[in-house]
Amino acid sequence: MKTYRVAVLSGDGIGPELVRATIPILRLASHLYGFELIFEEALVGGTAIEATGKALPLETLEICKRSQAIFFGAVGGKQWDSLPPEKQPERAALLPLRKTFSLFANLRPVSCYPELLDASPLKPQIASGVDLIIVRELTGGIYFGQPKGKIYTEQGEKAIDTLVYETSEIERVSAVAFEIALRRRKKLTLVDKANVLESSVLWRKTVKEIAKNYPDVQLNFMYVDNAALQLVLKPAQFDVILCENLFGDILSDEAAGIAGSLGLLASASIGSTKFGLYEPAGGSAPDIAGKNIANPIAQILSGALMFEYSFQEEEAAQAIRTAVGDVLKEGYRTADIAQDPSYICTTEQFADKVAQK
Amino acid sequence: MKTYRVAVLSGDGIGPELVRATIPILRLASHLYGFELIFEEALVGGTAIEATGKALPLETLEICKRSQAIFFGAVGGKQWDSLPPEKQPERAALLPLRKTFSLFANLRPVSCYPELLDASPLKPQIASGVDLIIVRELTGGIYFGQPKGKIYTEQGEKAIDTLVYETSEIERVSAVAFEIALRRRKKLTLVDKANVLESSVLWRKTVKEIAKNYPDVQLNFMYVDNAALQLVLKPAQFDVILCENLFGDILSDEAAGIAGSLGLLASASIGSTKFGLYEPAGGSAPDIAGKNIANPIAQILSGALMFEYSFQEEEAAQAIRTAVGDVLKEGYRTADIAQDPSYICTTEQFADKVAQK
Ligand SMILES: CC(C)[C@H](C(=O)O)[C@@H](O)C(=O)O
Ligand SMILES: CC(C)[C@H](C(=O)O)[C@@H](O)C(=O)O
Repeated sequence: MKTYRVAVLSGDGIGPELVRATIPILRLASHLYGFELIFEEALVGGTAIEATGKALPLETLEICKRSQAIFFGAVGGKQWDSLPPEKQPERAALLPLRKTFSLFANLRPVSCYPELLDASPLKPQIASGVDLIIVRELTGGIYFGQPKGKIYTEQGEKAIDTLVYETSEIERVSAVAFEIALRRRKKLTLVDKANVLESSVLWRKTVKEIAKNYPDVQLNFMYVDNAALQLVLKPAQFDVILCENLFGDILSDEAAGIAGSLGLLASASIGSTKFGLYEPAGGSAPDIAGKNIANPIAQILSGALMFEYSFQEEEAAQAIRTAVGDVLKEGYRTADIAQDPSYICTTEQFADKVAQK
Repeated sequence: MKTYRVAVLSGDGIGPELVRATIPILRLASHLYGFELIFEEALVGGTAIEATGKALPLETLEICKRSQAIFFGAVGGKQWDSLPPEKQPERAALLPLRKTFSLFANLRPVSCYPELLDASPLKPQIASGVDLIIVRELTGGIYFGQPKGKIYTEQGEKAIDTLVYETSEIERVSAVAFEIALRRRKKLTLVDKANVLESSVLWRKTVKEIAKNYPDVQLNFMYVDNAALQLVLKPAQFDVILCENLFGDILSDEAAGIAGSLGLLASASIGSTKFGLYEPAGGSAPDIAGKNIANPIAQILSGALMFEYSFQEEEAAQAIRTAVGDVLKEGYRTADIAQDPSYICTTEQFADKVAQK
């Protein structure tokens, strides 16, 4: 039987309860579709800082290295906000994980389940039909560019960050985006700020070159300010959105807003092998942690993405997505997106219902 | 009689027709409130490129210098898209204007006229009560930081942009934002990415210092990705949003989306004197230029901002805003935001109605 090893990094806040609720669903799907999953847990984030002093202990990295995928919960919380930024759970865990495993492409699909149009802040006629995916470059740009730091001047301080991209970094993530576009509606929008940034000029040039290998994909360009506007005005116009690291960070959260809740959206971070990191788009939400009320949909759908991208188990992935849709159709919701109090369920109850499907 | 000189830079596309429709309103308001306006026209943008070879001719700069404010239309169009970015109307006209006159603070008020909740893509219960203003730093950051350019490497090219801020640049725009907050609901949100960017760390530190001079203003911090999300989910939570140049560019267009149309929003770019540049948030919209159908509201409200910030003629400014609201209450709309065909009016008709009020 095919066997896949998964490193389970539940992290902080609602991470552990979401992961705990989701694992049985993944196991069940694996049995139904004839493959086996071996889960190995490891510490990450604030929880890891408490236990080992580090947000990403060496042992965790070892466990990830001997796995085919990382199933990630969430990291961060008020307790660690006073640490210097580079030691905080988010930055000290996520950024090195991305770098170590060269996870240069972050995929964030956004669509509105018809049953959940209520949850969207947009009018139903604007939100319906939204089905887009953001492909964000994840290991370059202003997150990692050097020099980065501060100097003291006569008048005060001066702080510097550097946005840098090389042709090859743009090429590899663009290829991922074009391949995805081929399997979808074949429309790709490069979002940049080529009227101001030199790096964006290089993005445009490089993506135009790559596009020659994909004559069936329709390529267009949009400035990031206009994209932020269009995502609110007419989100259904987009199919695949490709962008550099920081623009992708901003636009994918904005796009999540369209769906009405970060608790609904999954994300995959992949590289040039099948190895990937799968996590819900939301954060650790310390305010509702431990209450068994968090929405597990994003975590469950992250599992589906893992099946699809790291294991090529597409039927199992689709079965999970259908099950989530079916439970929503029956009216069940966690409290964050519930309209009718009699259909409110806990994290666990919702996950159980998905498993039953 | 008090007299104010205004440089009128109508520019391209719908710019000239919007400015033409608005000038009579400004004149009328000046007569009613006892001051005089001297308008002097000057070329800018693509129109200026055609006539002189330059998007911002020296003569235009001279005219601006002997004025107390610049009343700006819009620049840009397909004809000039093939020029190198640094020669295109937008970049070659707007960026040097901002730099020359040290217009370091861009103010973009966003509110939804109750009559226009229809126009918003957001559900009425989300859009109603939105009344925020974005204060964007406008002469620093990654727009101007050096080095900026590209180099050839063995594998291809490498492009670099530099995001740099000094304490003093942050201080002066923050003071503008706090002063504005004092005259409003006294809430200021600094939007940054302090978990990744050194420049954002400096912003937080500097803004915290300035805040000590404004004990009545409640200051909070938000990461830019979360701000992009919150603007869609709960825009009414914001009062004054302060941010660096590029984040402000992105968020102000997103916030414009909330109002439903760029055609509704005005903007002011100011410095440490009373001199300012006033322009609608929208672009030159070449596709509808010359048809007398563009929405003049943003241009008209830009005039009101000019009265307020450059001339301290607050009553005249308020009169214009009230007049726009009254015409909207009567049901009149330009085609872009119209619901009822029998109340559609042209650019000129709408402006005439405002003037009558
Ligand atoms: C926590 C932070 C460093 C991170 C990022 O900006 O990449 C987060 O916002 C994300 O999108 O995963
Ligand atoms: C045209 C462009 C350079 C400009 C900017 O990015 O500042 C525009 O988007 C704006 O916001 O005025």
